[in-house]
Amino acid sequence: MNGLFVTFEGGEGAGKSSMLNAIGKELSEEGYQVLETREPGGIEIAEKIRHVILDTSHTAMDARTEALLYAAARRQHLVEKVVPALQEGKIVLCDRFIDSSLAYQGYARGLGMDEVYKVNDFAIEHCMPELTLLFDIEPSEGLSRIAANKGREQNRLDLEEIDFHQKVHDAYHQLAGKYPNRIKVINAGQPFDKVKTAAYQVLRTRLPAAK
Amino acid sequence: MNGLFVTFEGGEGAGKSSMLNAIGKELSEEGYQVLETREPGGIEIAEKIRHVILDTSHTAMDARTEALLYAAARRQHLVEKVVPALQEGKIVLCDRFIDSSLAYQGYARGLGMDEVYKVNDFAIEHCMPELTLLFDIEPSEGLSRIAANKGREQNRLDLEEIDFHQKVHDAYHQLAGKYPNRIKVINAGQPFDKVKTAAYQVLRTRLPAAK
Repeated sequence: MNGLFVTFEGGEGAGKSSMLNAIGKELSEEGYQVLETREPGGIEIAEKIRHVILDTSHTAMDARTEALLYAAARRQHLVEKVVPALQEGKIVLCDRFIDSSLAYQGYARGLGMDEVYKVNDFAIEHCMPELTLLFDIEPSEGLSRIAANKGREQNRLDLEEIDFHQKVHDAYHQLAGKYPNRIKVINAGQPFDKVKTAAYQVLRTRLPAAK
Repeated sequence: MNGLFVTFEGGEGAGKSSMLNAIGKELSEEGYQVLETREPGGIEIAEKIRHVILDTSHTAMDARTEALLYAAARRQHLVEKVVPALQEGKIVLCDRFIDSSLAYQGYARGLGMDEVYKVNDFAIEHCMPELTLLFDIEPSEGLSRIAANKGREQNRLDLEEIDFHQKVHDAYHQLAGKYPNRIKVINAGQPFDKVKTAAYQVLRTRLPAAK
């Protein structure tokens, strides 16, 4: 595959989605072919799976069921959307991927990161991102940002306790320590333009010569 | 757990569902507390997952996505329905379980039985059935039985080729060879009462003394 697979990770309110849009726009202006996506990404089967996960009536969902559903939606989105784009030589910017499952289900819900990795490895068949930008923000600040954004619909994850989000934060830092070549930490507490510049500088080093 | 976990397996048209009902009735008449079930078994989350799997419009569903969805529905049905019943000392008769995934997804769809076992092991956390009754019938005969039963709604699996069902049949026999203590093969090509007697004789040897 000739493309470049980049994932955007971070806790709630880290601003990674806005950052992904801004960086995607800049890459497009430079002449790169870019695919901006996030699971379930308009893939019908993945959308339906995600709908089951996020239904706020499902308070009785077991943590392992949830991890399996995320892996299933990931698989379908990967084979229908990500892999074809990489084969066409595109730069794929994906909002959340395997590290989200490791941090949220593996660590914060206590299933174990190794256990959740096994299920996700089955799902992605070793198709790991070449670069992961980790947008780092204190959980309390991230949640404040979300609370201030009235236009955003609240979902089941937003209802979790601050303790859960702190665990997610810790897990991401463990992962960054474990995969230093793949995961690069960006301080997301800075003003938007500074965060963007920092993220773009890291990304530059991995861009293919050909556009 | 004080109960007994028994699964009923076999290819399409092997008659295992009718057999499960008949044996459940007989056990109840003998005074045993029985739970007859099959995934998704009325468990809301599992029902919604199964609906995604069996939707005939989903011809583009990847085999790994499907295996993950079956494992997710299995997990939720297990924790919400099977485990509580076993804890109450009931005899749980379950129509299809892990062996179906190993045979259908692992072998017939070519994902590999070991790979699919890993995902299912994550889902069931070693909660394997103590006894599995494998109702054995030639695929061509099983499919003829289904075709003759006009009242049964056709689903996506029924549309598979005979070759697929032959692979499922072969896989079940491999599993029976691998787990001889757990899996007992019942000749399902005999008249109903003979099949029932054969299955019941095997089941008797595992029944708890207390009812």
